[in-house]
Amino acid sequence: MPTTMDSLDQSSARERLRSYLHGTQLLGSIHSTLYYDQNTVMPAAGAPWRGEQLALLARQLHGRQSCIEYSELVAAAEAELTAAAEPAARRNLELLRQELERQQRLDPVLVGRIAEAQARGYALWQQAKAARNYGLFSPALAELVSLRQEQARQLAEPRSCWETLAQGFEPDITKQRLQELFQPLREQLPLLLEQAAALPPLPPADWDLDEAVQDQLCQELLQQWGYDASRCQRSRSPHPFSSTIGPADFRITTRIVAGSPFSAFLATAHEWGHSLYEQGLPRGGDHFFPWPLGEATSMGVHESQSLFFECRLGRSAAFAQRWYPRFCSALGRDSWGDGRRFWRGLNPMQAGLTRVEADELSYCLHIVLRFELELELLEQGLPVAELPERWNRGMEQLLGLRPGHDAEGCLQDVHWSEGLFGYFPSYALGHLISAQLSATLAAELGPIETLIATGNDAEIQAWLGRNVWSLGRRVNAEQLVQQVTGRPLSAEAFLTHLKDKLARFAA
Amino acid sequence: MPTTMDSLDQSSARERLRSYLHGTQLLGSIHSTLYYDQNTVMPAAGAPWRGEQLALLARQLHGRQSCIEYSELVAAAEAELTAAAEPAARRNLELLRQELERQQRLDPVLVGRIAEAQARGYALWQQAKAARNYGLFSPALAELVSLRQEQARQLAEPRSCWETLAQGFEPDITKQRLQELFQPLREQLPLLLEQAAALPPLPPADWDLDEAVQDQLCQELLQQWGYDASRCQRSRSPHPFSSTIGPADFRITTRIVAGSPFSAFLATAHEWGHSLYEQGLPRGGDHFFPWPLGEATSMGVHESQSLFFECRLGRSAAFAQRWYPRFCSALGRDSWGDGRRFWRGLNPMQAGLTRVEADELSYCLHIVLRFELELELLEQGLPVAELPERWNRGMEQLLGLRPGHDAEGCLQDVHWSEGLFGYFPSYALGHLISAQLSATLAAELGPIETLIATGNDAEIQAWLGRNVWSLGRRVNAEQLVQQVTGRPLSAEAFLTHLKDKLARFAA
Repeated sequence: MPTTMDSLDQSSARERLRSYLHGTQLLGSIHSTLYYDQNTVMPAAGAPWRGEQLALLARQLHGRQSCIEYSELVAAAEAELTAAAEPAARRNLELLRQELERQQRLDPVLVGRIAEAQARGYALWQQAKAARNYGLFSPALAELVSLRQEQARQLAEPRSCWETLAQGFEPDITKQRLQELFQPLREQLPLLLEQAAALPPLPPADWDLDEAVQDQLCQELLQQWGYDASRCQRSRSPHPFSSTIGPADFRITTRIVAGSPFSAFLATAHEWGHSLYEQGLPRGGDHFFPWPLGEATSMGVHESQSLFFECRLGRSAAFAQRWYPRFCSALGRDSWGDGRRFWRGLNPMQAGLTRVEADELSYCLHIVLRFELELELLEQGLPVAELPERWNRGMEQLLGLRPGHDAEGCLQDVHWSEGLFGYFPSYALGHLISAQLSATLAAELGPIETLIATGNDAEIQAWLGRNVWSLGRRVNAEQLVQQVTGRPLSAEAFLTHLKDKLARFAA
Repeated sequence: MPTTMDSLDQSSARERLRSYLHGTQLLGSIHSTLYYDQNTVMPAAGAPWRGEQLALLARQLHGRQSCIEYSELVAAAEAELTAAAEPAARRNLELLRQELERQQRLDPVLVGRIAEAQARGYALWQQAKAARNYGLFSPALAELVSLRQEQARQLAEPRSCWETLAQGFEPDITKQRLQELFQPLREQLPLLLEQAAALPPLPPADWDLDEAVQDQLCQELLQQWGYDASRCQRSRSPHPFSSTIGPADFRITTRIVAGSPFSAFLATAHEWGHSLYEQGLPRGGDHFFPWPLGEATSMGVHESQSLFFECRLGRSAAFAQRWYPRFCSALGRDSWGDGRRFWRGLNPMQAGLTRVEADELSYCLHIVLRFELELELLEQGLPVAELPERWNRGMEQLLGLRPGHDAEGCLQDVHWSEGLFGYFPSYALGHLISAQLSATLAAELGPIETLIATGNDAEIQAWLGRNVWSLGRRVNAEQLVQQVTGRPLSAEAFLTHLKDKLARFAA
């Protein structure tokens, strides 16, 4: 009689559930590895087979998360809970129960079809973007919209279609709350952009850096911020992302953009912020990895960390002072004259066509547009064929710019290529959360500019580790902000920060 | 009632089996992708988790290949075979039956333990090699030897332990046949090495090339040989290898060796030979992919193709004439004086410590040593602790050289780090097969030197495609040689080739 099975049978339901979740994490991380490979290494012709591989894993994952064996394990662990159980143990089971019920409502056939449509959509999006031909991608997008609508129908939550899809990224979010948070942005950001247009001119953009030099600068930045090559890996991909492949295996990717020599540098800061959050999640103890409480709490909080590193640190005056001489030596000349002008170069404060290249001031307007378009596509019957024109009109209204072609318009982002609807608002929430957390950090440790000027980067990271990263899913995004800052989330700190920066540039 | 399952139930057992094998191929290729990532990208600290991922996939694969559902599918397909069935259909089922019976004899616990020990062994081997400290690796090796012995016991074939383990690489091979084939090598190669030592001196080895330049040369070589970036990918890894990730996704890896500027170039030719074989395997029609007949027939045949590209093409006089001016321009000077001396530089014809850097003349002696050591470790009780000394003594006897440390001795190869015993002889078989096939190719198309000199590389590839690649597993290695060359495999063509080359260098 096999002793392993015997001892497993005698162990607590909680232990058996933990072991099961460990296996689920393994399977999920295999999926992540394939996704990473797909985006960094895989040749284009590998896409159909990769789609089948990912669909197989998605079916397995769905099976593991909705089967009777798992359902019984969760029920047994719930039954085992005593009144004296730790709140963390109870909270883990609540989160598992919620996710289990969602998974059980989904038809496995639909799960497989979505995974296949994602792989197909991604490949067609790449072709369409390269060819600047939206028509190559639009049938795939139509299929993804329809599959996601079906997914929301099957989930049958007391929420709208878009809200249902957004729950996986931003737990407990509503359209109304987002409209409330975004309204001040929609009103004030265009005015601030106008103010910024009256600032003294930007330093000349007539410089660029070789790929190898940019790689070297990114590597030096990561070294300053605690990059450990034995646990981390940096690669290239068409769209920058961060991925956790295992509990001690963290990957980030960036891309080199010709003519935008700050792009890879700031994207590295951004993805490193994501990675540090993942690296700082609680993993020890009884209630974290592989339990839900050991996970990131929302994509908004995730983005708040990446944006903190990109914008609050990477675009600060003190950081610019630190890197100004290094960029002069990398370039072989001084294109700025002084560190203040170099800082200004890091903060264009002007409207552009591309979200991922946008600065703090214009970024959220890109999100407002995407949020509104997603609502129209998913809930208001906007035909997929009309997306490019609707996009271009929205860009003109919000940012005063019209894309020259769809590759710099509605084809620019990877998200819709995989049917990720409901994700974009998290980026804007990230800006708001980052700003509000920054104000509290400054109140407790001193001004961020001073901390950077005195080389206290590690102290900043430690504060974030204590107050944000180590919480995992014990609180949702808005609870986290309330807990750390003592106030509900709002756009106020973010707008104040932007106004302060504009005032400093105008002085 | 779901129509897909209905129609599947009504389909033939053969169709259901094909669909099942397709799923198995998907799972196996996921394993390959993780292995590729592990060796090219993964940070070191990712190893334990990767080990768990690979063990999970190995258990799933073993389950799929030994479970009752699969066993019943094979039996149903066998029962469905009529007397009029095509031989290919019958042969596929025979091969599946053989493999099924092997899988069923293995305890799933052992399969998981082997996968875990492989991941651990690989990580420790990397550390041990870097630290030149065999002791860091030897406990892992002892565990792998013991697990493989247990595997052979469970397989319970009418073969010795080593022979049982070798079947997966070289179907139908016996120790006696190998000893018969290797005996002329053991006798004559040391004498040929002595002759080679009396040749005019080699051109100076006082040159090297930057990594970027070597990368560029490798890329140009692949372009000449039909590399298609939409289906292929080239990366770096500590040990060069070739991997098929999907039916249209072929990867090769190489490494840059400081001070050995031909190393990456010849390794690229070698791995490309492997990849072309995989790319040329039969995939269309009823009896090939995902059936066994669509697979490579043996590692010896695989190696015959890589060695053909590395040695018969890459080290030929006409190939040297072609690349001599390009290497002069890459180096910025002429280090050779003429193409004949450059050719001599590609053919050191002298003993060295490292198998993967060895030339045609000395290579097989490295294999003879490893073959004998594996027999001693697995069947004759050689303690793992004595391996370094036994290795060093063998090197001295066969090649007249003694390693300075174990990293250039018994730690040099990746194979044993994953417990791959029984694999090495395939490399030597590859030399013999390549030579015997080359003689027939030359008899049919004209001398290989002439074909290369006239730029008929594609004609050579087409001949190999017709006569070797497209056969898949319809014949085993020795049957393939008999079929193509009309004679049983022997060392004769190989030794004749070496003697001819020596005579040309002496002239």
